[in-house]
Amino acid sequence: MEQRSGNPAEAARRGHPRHRDEWGIEFSRIVAFSDGVFAIAITLLALAVEVPDELPSGMTLAELIEDQSRDLIAYAISFAVVGKLWLSHHRFFSAVERFDSVLMGLNIFYLAWIALVPVTSEVLGDYGDNSAGVITYAIVMAAVSLTFQVQIAYSYRNGLIRPELREIERGFLEPANLIIAAVFLISIPVALVSPLVATLMWPIIFLTGRRLAQRLAELRS
Amino acid sequence: MEQRSGNPAEAARRGHPRHRDEWGIEFSRIVAFSDGVFAIAITLLALAVEVPDELPSGMTLAELIEDQSRDLIAYAISFAVVGKLWLSHHRFFSAVERFDSVLMGLNIFYLAWIALVPVTSEVLGDYGDNSAGVITYAIVMAAVSLTFQVQIAYSYRNGLIRPELREIERGFLEPANLIIAAVFLISIPVALVSPLVATLMWPIIFLTGRRLAQRLAELRS
Amino acid sequence: MEQRSGNPAEAARRGHPRHRDEWGIEFSRIVAFSDGVFAIAITLLALAVEVPDELPSGMTLAELIEDQSRDLIAYAISFAVVGKLWLSHHRFFSAVERFDSVLMGLNIFYLAWIALVPVTSEVLGDYGDNSAGVITYAIVMAAVSLTFQVQIAYSYRNGLIRPELREIERGFLEPANLIIAAVFLISIPVALVSPLVATLMWPIIFLTGRRLAQRLAELRS
Amino acid sequence: MEQRSGNPAEAARRGHPRHRDEWGIEFSRIVAFSDGVFAIAITLLALAVEVPDELPSGMTLAELIEDQSRDLIAYAISFAVVGKLWLSHHRFFSAVERFDSVLMGLNIFYLAWIALVPVTSEVLGDYGDNSAGVITYAIVMAAVSLTFQVQIAYSYRNGLIRPELREIERGFLEPANLIIAAVFLISIPVALVSPLVATLMWPIIFLTGRRLAQRLAELRS
Repeated sequence: MEQRSGNPAEAARRGHPRHRDEWGIEFSRIVAFSDGVFAIAITLLALAVEVPDELPSGMTLAELIEDQSRDLIAYAISFAVVGKLWLSHHRFFSAVERFDSVLMGLNIFYLAWIALVPVTSEVLGDYGDNSAGVITYAIVMAAVSLTFQVQIAYSYRNGLIRPELREIERGFLEPANLIIAAVFLISIPVALVSPLVATLMWPIIFLTGRRLAQRLAELRS
Repeated sequence: MEQRSGNPAEAARRGHPRHRDEWGIEFSRIVAFSDGVFAIAITLLALAVEVPDELPSGMTLAELIEDQSRDLIAYAISFAVVGKLWLSHHRFFSAVERFDSVLMGLNIFYLAWIALVPVTSEVLGDYGDNSAGVITYAIVMAAVSLTFQVQIAYSYRNGLIRPELREIERGFLEPANLIIAAVFLISIPVALVSPLVATLMWPIIFLTGRRLAQRLAELRS
Repeated sequence: MEQRSGNPAEAARRGHPRHRDEWGIEFSRIVAFSDGVFAIAITLLALAVEVPDELPSGMTLAELIEDQSRDLIAYAISFAVVGKLWLSHHRFFSAVERFDSVLMGLNIFYLAWIALVPVTSEVLGDYGDNSAGVITYAIVMAAVSLTFQVQIAYSYRNGLIRPELREIERGFLEPANLIIAAVFLISIPVALVSPLVATLMWPIIFLTGRRLAQRLAELRS
Repeated sequence: MEQRSGNPAEAARRGHPRHRDEWGIEFSRIVAFSDGVFAIAITLLALAVEVPDELPSGMTLAELIEDQSRDLIAYAISFAVVGKLWLSHHRFFSAVERFDSVLMGLNIFYLAWIALVPVTSEVLGDYGDNSAGVITYAIVMAAVSLTFQVQIAYSYRNGLIRPELREIERGFLEPANLIIAAVFLISIPVALVSPLVATLMWPIIFLTGRRLAQRLAELRS
């Protein structure tokens, strides 16, 4: 479970980044903690769908459920986005070879935005026809993407990524993530004019994301 | 923790499915994330049982608790179903030998339905005498079974299952799962006539499920 | 992560209990799932402490917090009980060497009672001066202990426990658990007369539990 | 996964502390359980931000969101504090080499305070301009730090820490933790005069914490 090569105490004293194999249990704790936050946040998304104890007078249950369709759409969008973010986080951390206290701090800052998604999704479900509701959602999602970008950039700049995966992963992770950030940022001014058009922009991430990312990666190399 | 045989970077570039032993920590993260969603969803089921701060006037606490009996029955049904689904998921993933991004995506789509169960269970507890309430529950549960079925079918078709378990597990998992889907789907038209009869159909899954599954498996071979 | 000796496929077909080392990842999934339910249930206990958005008129915040003292007492009792139950579960499963589908089913049935504790604790916090409230709590807690007892008894009867720990663990786990069950069961009739006296009986578990358990263990041997 | 050297049964009977390598799966369960509670508590923090179903009359959504700014500030403070506490817990447990039932009990007592943070954070968000609200928050946070301190002190006194990390970790963990406790304790009387000033004291932990901790560590050695 914990094979420690070299002298970890020495390494810790000098503040060097720690290798994931030397500090196996700690690295897997960071990853497990992040997964825990993701799993809780993604499951709490469903709590935004409200179930009143009693039917409002003059309304059938079928009508009430239809009335929640906005909540369900917000749930579907948020589950897809958080699921995609988790897959990226998962892929990124499987490429991380070393970690230091800065990366851990950045990861916690990133998770603070992830944990805000359920409440923001509730805002979208209840006020999705309102510019301020759509903008709130777009801001939180853009912040999620950008704080993830900071983690990627920091890890590459400080040599925390497995050498053999460096090229492949950067070509995959960064463009995909920047597209998410860009779509949400562009949707903010659009929402001032039309909240609906802004919301319809978001699925673009899933429809064209992969192709665009590949093209960007090709242009780079 | 992570013994990687072959050349994972090469494999990733070519888009080949990854072997669970090559990518131990990643595979166990997918499984742990799924388990997290299951554990949260199953524990949140109990939150559907409502505890008012003060007793409604002219009602004793014993009467109030009796009044929640529907919520408790919904809790019992949902806990049993989600527990069974988790056991199947557990069993299925212990037979999975390789995984690719499609299986991961399908698994997240499946978890999106699992995470809806607590809210749906609350609907059942509050509106179990209403056709629309029972149908909502049956639709979500059928969707859970069918999205699981898609994962099983995809994994078998693409050779992601351990060869030595292929026959045994397919004979076990698929019929059991299809029976769950069938019972919930059949209960939908029944609920239009009688929500009570539809609800009483569900325990059939547990009472006759195993025998039926075995017979179906025998018929196949 | 998964060294499989013997022929697991063969073992599975014949329905033999599986050894935890042969099926390492699966065994640890069961344990992780149980821990997840425990961790969620124990953290949700705090949600029973209610925070109104605005102060009721003519009440200071200090008075409001004092008013929640019952909720906080219920929180303290429940956290201590669930914590102790988790330690027992932890200790029991570290002695389990093999598992089969019956033990897994019993464990899920046990977890269904654990997941009810937060709601029950809320009942205790809001209606702790009411016989029905105290009895509800005692019933759920007695059910928790008794369903755990069934797991212990089944595992011993079917040789699922590590041979070298068999004697020691049985002497420790069973008496401690039976005392919990007994105290909660005895408190049920007491609560009909005085809810307060019934509640005061519960801390006996922590004060005298260990000594009583040791004496019972000595009497046995 | 579980290499057991020596005779664990014998060790357990004599009540000796267990080595983490001998009892790998159990040690990692304690750590995973703690991480679970941390992950749930930190994600639940966001639920304190309230989303009303309908806009109060005469209020725009932008105004409503602005109105929640206190809740968001409480969220930011609590996420930062719980994140920092988790990093310390993580660092402390990576230095723990042996554990006994007292340490496990102390850890559960500590987690009982951690699980109270979301509710306390909600109090801060709703009543942050009220002395009693700020004091409640400061008391819970001071209790968290002090119960952590008890764990550290107990582990050092009973030789449960890896010898090679003993000096380094003590110099790091204890001063950092005592500063957190001190800042929250000092803020209690301050809050009687000015809740705002008391709240502004807390970020000091993050701004000057590291330097102060280093100086204290230097003074010691």
